[in-house]
Amino acid sequence: MIVLITDFGLSDPYVGIMKGVIKKISPSSEILDLSHRVPPGNIALARLFLEQSYPFFPAKTVFVAVVDPGVGTSRKPLAIRAGDNYFVGPDNGLFSFVETMPATPKQVVALDRPEFHLKNVPGGTFHGRDVFAPAAAYLDRGIPVFRLGSFQDGIVTLPGVSVRRTDRGLEVPLVHVDHFGNLIFALTRETLERTVGLSSFSLEIAGRSVEIIADHYDTREPLVALFNSFGLLEIAVPGGSAASQLGISSLNGAGDFPLRIRIGE
Amino acid sequence: MIVLITDFGLSDPYVGIMKGVIKKISPSSEILDLSHRVPPGNIALARLFLEQSYPFFPAKTVFVAVVDPGVGTSRKPLAIRAGDNYFVGPDNGLFSFVETMPATPKQVVALDRPEFHLKNVPGGTFHGRDVFAPAAAYLDRGIPVFRLGSFQDGIVTLPGVSVRRTDRGLEVPLVHVDHFGNLIFALTRETLERTVGLSSFSLEIAGRSVEIIADHYDTREPLVALFNSFGLLEIAVPGGSAASQLGISSLNGAGDFPLRIRIGE
Amino acid sequence: MIVLITDFGLSDPYVGIMKGVIKKISPSSEILDLSHRVPPGNIALARLFLEQSYPFFPAKTVFVAVVDPGVGTSRKPLAIRAGDNYFVGPDNGLFSFVETMPATPKQVVALDRPEFHLKNVPGGTFHGRDVFAPAAAYLDRGIPVFRLGSFQDGIVTLPGVSVRRTDRGLEVPLVHVDHFGNLIFALTRETLERTVGLSSFSLEIAGRSVEIIADHYDTREPLVALFNSFGLLEIAVPGGSAASQLGISSLNGAGDFPLRIRIGE
Repeated sequence: MIVLITDFGLSDPYVGIMKGVIKKISPSSEILDLSHRVPPGNIALARLFLEQSYPFFPAKTVFVAVVDPGVGTSRKPLAIRAGDNYFVGPDNGLFSFVETMPATPKQVVALDRPEFHLKNVPGGTFHGRDVFAPAAAYLDRGIPVFRLGSFQDGIVTLPGVSVRRTDRGLEVPLVHVDHFGNLIFALTRETLERTVGLSSFSLEIAGRSVEIIADHYDTREPLVALFNSFGLLEIAVPGGSAASQLGISSLNGAGDFPLRIRIGE
Repeated sequence: MIVLITDFGLSDPYVGIMKGVIKKISPSSEILDLSHRVPPGNIALARLFLEQSYPFFPAKTVFVAVVDPGVGTSRKPLAIRAGDNYFVGPDNGLFSFVETMPATPKQVVALDRPEFHLKNVPGGTFHGRDVFAPAAAYLDRGIPVFRLGSFQDGIVTLPGVSVRRTDRGLEVPLVHVDHFGNLIFALTRETLERTVGLSSFSLEIAGRSVEIIADHYDTREPLVALFNSFGLLEIAVPGGSAASQLGISSLNGAGDFPLRIRIGE
Repeated sequence: MIVLITDFGLSDPYVGIMKGVIKKISPSSEILDLSHRVPPGNIALARLFLEQSYPFFPAKTVFVAVVDPGVGTSRKPLAIRAGDNYFVGPDNGLFSFVETMPATPKQVVALDRPEFHLKNVPGGTFHGRDVFAPAAAYLDRGIPVFRLGSFQDGIVTLPGVSVRRTDRGLEVPLVHVDHFGNLIFALTRETLERTVGLSSFSLEIAGRSVEIIADHYDTREPLVALFNSFGLLEIAVPGGSAASQLGISSLNGAGDFPLRIRIGE
């Protein structure tokens, strides 16, 4: 099985063409979509989506991630094996999380063998079609990773977002605003408990305080915090959109909307 | 085959993750999408889409509907068998139409057996992943409905929209504005004929009169009414959008835009 | 395999219903999506997408194109065989490019045999469901084209966009603004070279000059031109959107934004 995540959107035929290329090389491959509406060039969000999603798919699924602002430059096209998981895409930080996966074996190759690329095609700006789709198709047909290119030592990793300590507590960055307007922060229950200990604490976002940490959305609170289904702290408005209620219209300027945790208040 | 309808949108990886969960449990299941852009929490519209769509799919298709503002509360997660049709989702009115299906047998179970849920996952707000996707996968693998949970007697049903009689005729509620800006009303040809009889009548929407009931969109009329491909009355602007021409920007406030049928005019 | 392209959007269940109809007739057909977000009624863009995409799919793929403002009128529903390629949809210019394909044999039939239509369905405005989906399903099951309807001699073709000569050079029409805001023009490298010869030339769009023709997006130029992966000239803003930077908000009024090529400057 092959799973695709891109920033190509759903209006243009780009994703469909990648699927055509895959089916020509590997007619029995099944292809699923993770998301094609990653904002253009947002490597960090695609990486978050991938990291949260891959454990829910069957072993040997090949994940193809194409958020690739540097397409056509010297950044390497990669195929990665990490245990029973396969990842294909540009070496730009998309796969940072692979470095900390306990999986064995780990193999990384640069997709530098033209015999596994699409041939006789114009242009050099659509590696999704010409390099990554073919590589995924060959992997899903059972060709081993090491056949597709030259081994390389490591991959590009980007620093993850992290909690910042302040005088009075913590500042936690906003990492995603989802379709429901839920605000998702880079904070796990473990990190909160380790940091706050037995102290009381209060939560504040965009000047509004959040009273409780709930288990579900159906409360009378105007604004709730909960640990969501991926283990991260989420701020939601029951029956509404936290993003629109708090005036957070997009992830542009997300840095302006940290969650403030005041300890001892 | 498994068919999904949700209000999850297409930006987040939520739908893709549900598909991964299904394929892990039931690798040979095929999965199709009905819509993932039901407006958040709009149970009535998801129910209309389901009711209009299920007859066009093969027998034994499992329909999974997740429009679930009460996720995590005491509302029951259900699996329903109605003849050769299977439905999985929350007990919140989504499946109201099942009550009037002539299908036999009818079986309803609450999905209360943890051995059929996804295990070792954080959070309690993603039943699409943790409860509904697994149930659909087991059903599609051939596990009978009664194995998945405890029988329950009925399901939650919501009242349907209905035509209102007025002094001078009828008022018919708007139920949907589609992608083309077509306005779809809760009125079948049978209801119109039974109500109007042999009298003449006129149609009016948002202060504009509609002259004829046509068979297709390609006329010189600025505004046409026709009975659409699901048997409901539809108002359209040939080559344009009735919604934008009449200033109806969304289904918010749809109650303000009834179709008025004046009998004897 | 069956590939769908429509202007139905992704909110309504229309595309899903077409897939249900296909699977009922041909349970083993695989179905892929090319795009369902062609702007309503934009036949020219659907034709461009189809023409650019079909070569990347396996032989015998059946392409179903439903951009059909004249549905229900006398325009003919068609099935076309062109060599190993199959096309199904309305005879309104969508398949203009088939006329110049070198493929043999070429067969065109009008889908006028009711035994291959969906039966007992209301309305006459959803040929995607009632005529085209069934035809595609029968073709994918191996029924030959000539069985589905009566031969007809030719198809409707629409004139393509073309480069216009001016006093000082060329004016090249904008044919598409893609998801990244890239501007795509009806100009191949061959046409440029043939027209410009050995002369120097300059490029101008919306009053801005474009300095170089690059190979990829990753340059320090504020605005680049390149021949894209379908062989057409494209104007892009590295790391941004050319459309928004140049104030081109949609394809409405695309005629106002030609690329001007001044020869000898």
